[in-house]
Amino acid sequence: MKHMIIASTSTIFNSGYLEYILEDLKTHFNNVKTILFIPYARPGGITHEDYTARAQAAFSKISINVVGLHTFNNPEQAILQAEAIFVGGGNTFVLVSQLYKVNAIQTIIEAVNSGTPYLGTSAGSNICGLTMNTTNDMPIVYPPSFKTLGLVPFNINPHYLDPDATSTHMGETRETRIKEFMCYNTQPVVGLREGSWLEVKGSTITLKGRLTARIFEHNKEPYELKPESDISLLK
Amino acid sequence: MKHMIIASTSTIFNSGYLEYILEDLKTHFNNVKTILFIPYARPGGITHEDYTARAQAAFSKISINVVGLHTFNNPEQAILQAEAIFVGGGNTFVLVSQLYKVNAIQTIIEAVNSGTPYLGTSAGSNICGLTMNTTNDMPIVYPPSFKTLGLVPFNINPHYLDPDATSTHMGETRETRIKEFMCYNTQPVVGLREGSWLEVKGSTITLKGRLTARIFEHNKEPYELKPESDISLLK
Repeated sequence: MKHMIIASTSTIFNSGYLEYILEDLKTHFNNVKTILFIPYARPGGITHEDYTARAQAAFSKISINVVGLHTFNNPEQAILQAEAIFVGGGNTFVLVSQLYKVNAIQTIIEAVNSGTPYLGTSAGSNICGLTMNTTNDMPIVYPPSFKTLGLVPFNINPHYLDPDATSTHMGETRETRIKEFMCYNTQPVVGLREGSWLEVKGSTITLKGRLTARIFEHNKEPYELKPESDISLLK
Repeated sequence: MKHMIIASTSTIFNSGYLEYILEDLKTHFNNVKTILFIPYARPGGITHEDYTARAQAAFSKISINVVGLHTFNNPEQAILQAEAIFVGGGNTFVLVSQLYKVNAIQTIIEAVNSGTPYLGTSAGSNICGLTMNTTNDMPIVYPPSFKTLGLVPFNINPHYLDPDATSTHMGETRETRIKEFMCYNTQPVVGLREGSWLEVKGSTITLKGRLTARIFEHNKEPYELKPESDISLLK
């Protein structure tokens, strides 16, 4: 049975790393002693070691140990044997490229389907969707595919951002970008605002946090979904 | 001899399509009767026809005719025979995918190198760089490669945007994104603010418009470049 938290972001404004969600993580990772951390997304290009230390600092507060996947000679085995998995944010293109490189995609799907608790933040949440086509990240490396874990039957847009009515910048709004995606693809997109997350328990998917999520479906106007809604029928 | 305008954007705030640069286009396309428009980037997912009509409406003001590349059975031949080429903005992933699909990449390089005047805006400028790795666009389709025209010896980031000091959103700033790119790549990046463009005349590349550009070089702090600077030595 799947047991996942798919969070828009690791960090909300004026708060420490994972701080806003730490109490929920305590419940989510109940009885877990050691989490396998996948640091591949490397935010700001930091090293795997430094990124793992950042995760460790947060999880120390709830007495959980963190080991980085980069320290294992056999990543596939490490994933299958992990008590729990956390995929951190950063650049989705870098993350997905590295996951393909070490053959981790199929292995993570297998582990999560067999019940290994999963936490994803930002890029680590984006990859839970069908494809990474709705990432906000800059394509700084070329991955072998945009296909991702497909652990939920839609795409995810983390850090969902409403249009800024005062902006004089002519770049596209997030809504415009996702609507463009919908011109070429039919799967729904869940725009998760910062501070929101999806809780996946088996086949039930619930929106958590205080904010609504913005839902994009093929041939429909985008709409808002309330917290605590069940979105498992979205596909 | 190359003869290009590589513009950050087609449209600046409170101004019509191409309006801010129309006088310069008149000079750039001196004696040109018909421009070949490449509408593949499809902003907002609009049709090639509608996009070509938008370009025609702007160029009518300087008495230039516009034909869309999508109307030709043989795109390669159309590019080689064009009096001038304009590649409009939209989504860079959609644009590059379609250019590869019709074998247009090498043909555009050939045409521009043999002197066909070129105008690019936004996505149409991004592709003038070595790769499309520094686009701001959402990866809504998967192109066969991120390699682009390489008509200038660096990468381009159009719509360059300074960090918003008042923002509470935790997404990366443009500078952070480009610095991440520099962790994995060595070529320079030119951050072109809206209203700026590069003028390429043979091997001379000059920054035009009223604003400075932000330059990112490997192992260097980013710096500002003044308008009218020659950046042909950047590589």
